Amino acid sequence: MNYIVFKNESALYYECNYSCDNAIFLKLGKEAFFITDGRYEIEAKRAIKRAQVLITNALLDKLIEILKKNRVKNIAIDPVEWDIYSFDRLKSQVPTKFKFIPNMSHKKRVIKSAKEIKYLKKAVKLGKDSFKKIAFALNNLEGSNEIELNFIIESYLRDYGLRDLSFEPIFAINENAAKPHAIASKKSLKKGDLILLDAGVKYKRYCSDRTRTAYYDKDFTFNTKQKFKSNKIQKAYDCVLKAHDMAIKKARAGMRAKDIDKIARDVIEKKGFGKYFVHSTGHGVGIDIHEMPYISYKSDTVIEDGMVFTIEPGIYIEGEFGIRIEDMVVISNSKAEVL
Amino acid sequence: MNYIVFKNESALYYECNYSCDNAIFLKLGKEAFFITDGRYEIEAKRAIKRAQVLITNALLDKLIEILKKNRVKNIAIDPVEWDIYSFDRLKSQVPTKFKFIPNMSHKKRVIKSAKEIKYLKKAVKLGKDSFKKIAFALNNLEGSNEIELNFIIESYLRDYGLRDLSFEPIFAINENAAKPHAIASKKSLKKGDLILLDAGVKYKRYCSDRTRTAYYDKDFTFNTKQKFKSNKIQKAYDCVLKAHDMAIKKARAGMRAKDIDKIARDVIEKKGFGKYFVHSTGHGVGIDIHEMPYISYKSDTVIEDGMVFTIEPGIYIEGEFGIRIEDMVVISNSKAEVL
Repeated sequence: MNYIVFKNESALYYECNYSCDNAIFLKLGKEAFFITDGRYEIEAKRAIKRAQVLITNALLDKLIEILKKNRVKNIAIDPVEWDIYSFDRLKSQVPTKFKFIPNMSHKKRVIKSAKEIKYLKKAVKLGKDSFKKIAFALNNLEGSNEIELNFIIESYLRDYGLRDLSFEPIFAINENAAKPHAIASKKSLKKGDLILLDAGVKYKRYCSDRTRTAYYDKDFTFNTKQKFKSNKIQKAYDCVLKAHDMAIKKARAGMRAKDIDKIARDVIEKKGFGKYFVHSTGHGVGIDIHEMPYISYKSDTVIEDGMVFTIEPGIYIEGEFGIRIEDMVVISNSKAEVL
Repeated sequence: MNYIVFKNESALYYECNYSCDNAIFLKLGKEAFFITDGRYEIEAKRAIKRAQVLITNALLDKLIEILKKNRVKNIAIDPVEWDIYSFDRLKSQVPTKFKFIPNMSHKKRVIKSAKEIKYLKKAVKLGKDSFKKIAFALNNLEGSNEIELNFIIESYLRDYGLRDLSFEPIFAINENAAKPHAIASKKSLKKGDLILLDAGVKYKRYCSDRTRTAYYDKDFTFNTKQKFKSNKIQKAYDCVLKAHDMAIKKARAGMRAKDIDKIARDVIEKKGFGKYFVHSTGHGVGIDIHEMPYISYKSDTVIEDGMVFTIEPGIYIEGEFGIRIEDMVVISNSKAEVL
């Protein structure tokens, strides 16, 4: 198949084991081209074995030139990757027919190879180890505020610069945890607080993603066994944990993604917290932190062996607290195995 | 004018003083709408005063609904912001005519207001102060490698989490500086090395951008006065500094951007280093680190008072060294004033 990857770093990396923020990848039968600019010449040429590296100041013109020269009749592109402006320029200058495949690279990547699962496991292990170190550090950080704690947490996750993050970590205290994508504030940490940490790291570009909610007290940990003073919080926490556990226990290959969402959602609805579970149960993880399959009430994707995704139910009560528990699973022998 | 901003955080921020990674802004005459999802409800509603915040799981459907309800006949969009997939869905469902304005928000933002210049000055000041602290710290960090040093440098720039960065800083030693976008390596710092630091921080979302190249020795600084042991390096350094100084000295309102590029390029070409100056002389800076005007040999943009951009000539010799000196200027009273 002929296809183009347009400036999508994860898709570029998947094709070439290298990416940069200004490149086009072109696959024409057995030939492959990586078109980029002079800033990346040295590293691209060293890293890329499976494609010819072409250096130019005008990426799109070079692409047009190759399509013309090779009289390419049909080629697949991802309409989500292309902006209208660039695509209008492209299509007006070549006689090629374009086949639109939305999320083409994500579709290719939905079933992970053994090697990819190995990398994802390693990323999860590194993330998990960081959570332990962070819990240990937080025990001595009472009185620090969210901004300071976020910085310290990030330093642990990054292992002082040796590791990339999957995304900006979220660390939130009490009612700030009610915002699923909270921004750090000057709120200080004190004993008896509810804390939520959502963070992940990369291993060879593959992401991990993990969330824990905990009761901050002497020698607290990020284990899923937590005791809160407030009955309401404890009830919500137990409910989220049950939803999380049930979804993992009952997920099977052959189900649709929405069936898995429903398992978690039913548990939470039954306890009366339904309207506080404001997002999907999970999302695929790979080179991107958000990939297919999406474990949402709308998704008809059929679950298969080799899929990797999160299970992360949550309950968010504005002005009070937020709870989320998240793990990554791989479908293996038809069941969900926690990574 | 009616217009749409589609998921472009900088443009959203410019319109609303708030942004998130999943939002559409719609301006219809005097009315304005900020359409986003439940994750951002609390913060969007608190921050946005000048638009109605609408929460939905289907941003595009909500946009379509409003365009239909208001029988909008004409609206401007930025074809660079829109992916083909979303735009095809939009245009197939509304009778609206779309006017394409490429880089619409960047065009609006090319002349900075007094308030914006104040913020940019403050960002530059914070960046400059960080360079001083970093030089001081580096004096005690001989033997550390680029990865470790990058991490330490970032900690200073971020002021331990209190500040956002304009971009991932670049710190490179000797031949690694020859890659304008170098990736940190395990190369260790030693006395007599050439070091290059390219970094910037944000103040109220406005970016700074600064590069210095220095000879690493006892009590070195990031001043532009540098003494290298190698004659070739010194010659190249003096040439870059001259190109930098001349471009700043001679830049005038009324010139085209390419005239300014030519001033710097001529100095470097005259000394025989022309082919090693592989990028443009500069770029605009604002909420985005790269904005208009682009100070490139191709740009016919006429320079005006209130424009803010970098002057950053460089010489990169593969396998040997790289040199770049960068400052930000504002055009004020027809001349370039260093921020």
